[in-house]
Amino acid sequence: MAAMAEAVLACALADAVAEKRSRAARSTHRPRVLAFDVTGSLLNIGALAPLFERLFGDGSVVHEWFGQTILYSETATITGTFTPFSDLSAGVLRMLGAIHQVAVRPGDVDELKQLLSTLPAYPDVLPGLRRLKDAGFRLVTLTDSPDPVSSKAGPLANAGLDKLFERQFAADSVRQYKPSRTTYEMVSQQLNVSAASVCMVAANVWDLIGAKSAGCLTALLARNGVAPLMLAGVPQPDLIGPDLTEVADALDRLNSP
Amino acid sequence: MAAMAEAVLACALADAVAEKRSRAARSTHRPRVLAFDVTGSLLNIGALAPLFERLFGDGSVVHEWFGQTILYSETATITGTFTPFSDLSAGVLRMLGAIHQVAVRPGDVDELKQLLSTLPAYPDVLPGLRRLKDAGFRLVTLTDSPDPVSSKAGPLANAGLDKLFERQFAADSVRQYKPSRTTYEMVSQQLNVSAASVCMVAANVWDLIGAKSAGCLTALLARNGVAPLMLAGVPQPDLIGPDLTEVADALDRLNSP
Repeated sequence: MAAMAEAVLACALADAVAEKRSRAARSTHRPRVLAFDVTGSLLNIGALAPLFERLFGDGSVVHEWFGQTILYSETATITGTFTPFSDLSAGVLRMLGAIHQVAVRPGDVDELKQLLSTLPAYPDVLPGLRRLKDAGFRLVTLTDSPDPVSSKAGPLANAGLDKLFERQFAADSVRQYKPSRTTYEMVSQQLNVSAASVCMVAANVWDLIGAKSAGCLTALLARNGVAPLMLAGVPQPDLIGPDLTEVADALDRLNSP
Repeated sequence: MAAMAEAVLACALADAVAEKRSRAARSTHRPRVLAFDVTGSLLNIGALAPLFERLFGDGSVVHEWFGQTILYSETATITGTFTPFSDLSAGVLRMLGAIHQVAVRPGDVDELKQLLSTLPAYPDVLPGLRRLKDAGFRLVTLTDSPDPVSSKAGPLANAGLDKLFERQFAADSVRQYKPSRTTYEMVSQQLNVSAASVCMVAANVWDLIGAKSAGCLTALLARNGVAPLMLAGVPQPDLIGPDLTEVADALDRLNSP
């Protein structure tokens, strides 16, 4: 791409973020509860790339796998054919194997599950969460995939983050996946707060469309590979930042209602 | 991948197709109406690759664009935030531009829309449709995106296929996208037939999960880049073939109920 086009794009994005920051400070109230998406938002799925590199000769297939897994979780919600998220993840891996003509063996599926439970946190996450907790926010998670029922530690514990959260909510306990309204309402209802006092924090635009539609505030972690879907009629995030450091800054600037 | 693994995979797929064919002949009744998905099923979105090659330096980004557009159409259905499909397509193109740090200009969006309305049919489609029509099936389409309201010819007319279809149904006329049950019911209700006498034919696995959940028969066009999601609890297609030639064979072998 031409340098000029890059510069134009960078300015447009910076303008959008600055405008959003200014507007948020004026009009967005301070939430009491922050509900975090986990996989891909707090934890880096880039750690799965070596498995996809080995299987498909291209580590970036991890993004195809994740996108298709989300697509089929939404399909399950729309069609009322709920299937546990770990089964969906494994089924989509085998489907991609058939598409790319690569044999996916049971050991590969086991490796995927093992890697998913030991994903590393992004470097901004631990300091960002500590700061938000110190600032008085209540911190919870809301994920599509539950922690394992077994005695093994789940991904948050393995990443050293679990103690920072008051509760961990899993969408599949209502047998509907995000962005179904029911999943966000589960959080506000079980914490006995209004939807508007919950802010969903995620690196998934589709997740925030759901949270916003359910009446929550939303903050987009616009990490690498993430950008808002700016389109009339599509609910936009209340806050946007490139990582949790900046999103925590923005959240802590908000005034209580 | 090792030659042995390839052979094992090819055998497993061939077995699955053969088993499916045998089971279908035993247990699947002959539908009266065949409802076809259009974009990617009858028409080849590979013709968009040069645009994506020019914008992103990689023609295969067309699949990321299509997958994300479907994901956001499902998100719109789940969250009740309906947005016209052509707007979604354009919005996702701009979102991918921001993600890949490529400037997407209004002219690029216009080119996408122009290319989408002039996609070529796969070579098996015209003979396959003629054969099915001659065999007495009623042929309709059911797409997420409607033909343009303007006087311009739509994609089916431009591909020389429109005269083969009795009706063209667009999911967005019910303001919900496939795989919502409402979209498949629109077809059976407006044609005054039972859901079970309609067979949805598509190269989209998620589309067939919806059709099957709504009580229709389903046939998967397992074109390049398509494979079933074989997973307990996920409704499976009644018929599978690599293209419309083989799917038409399988449909015409079915006995009337």
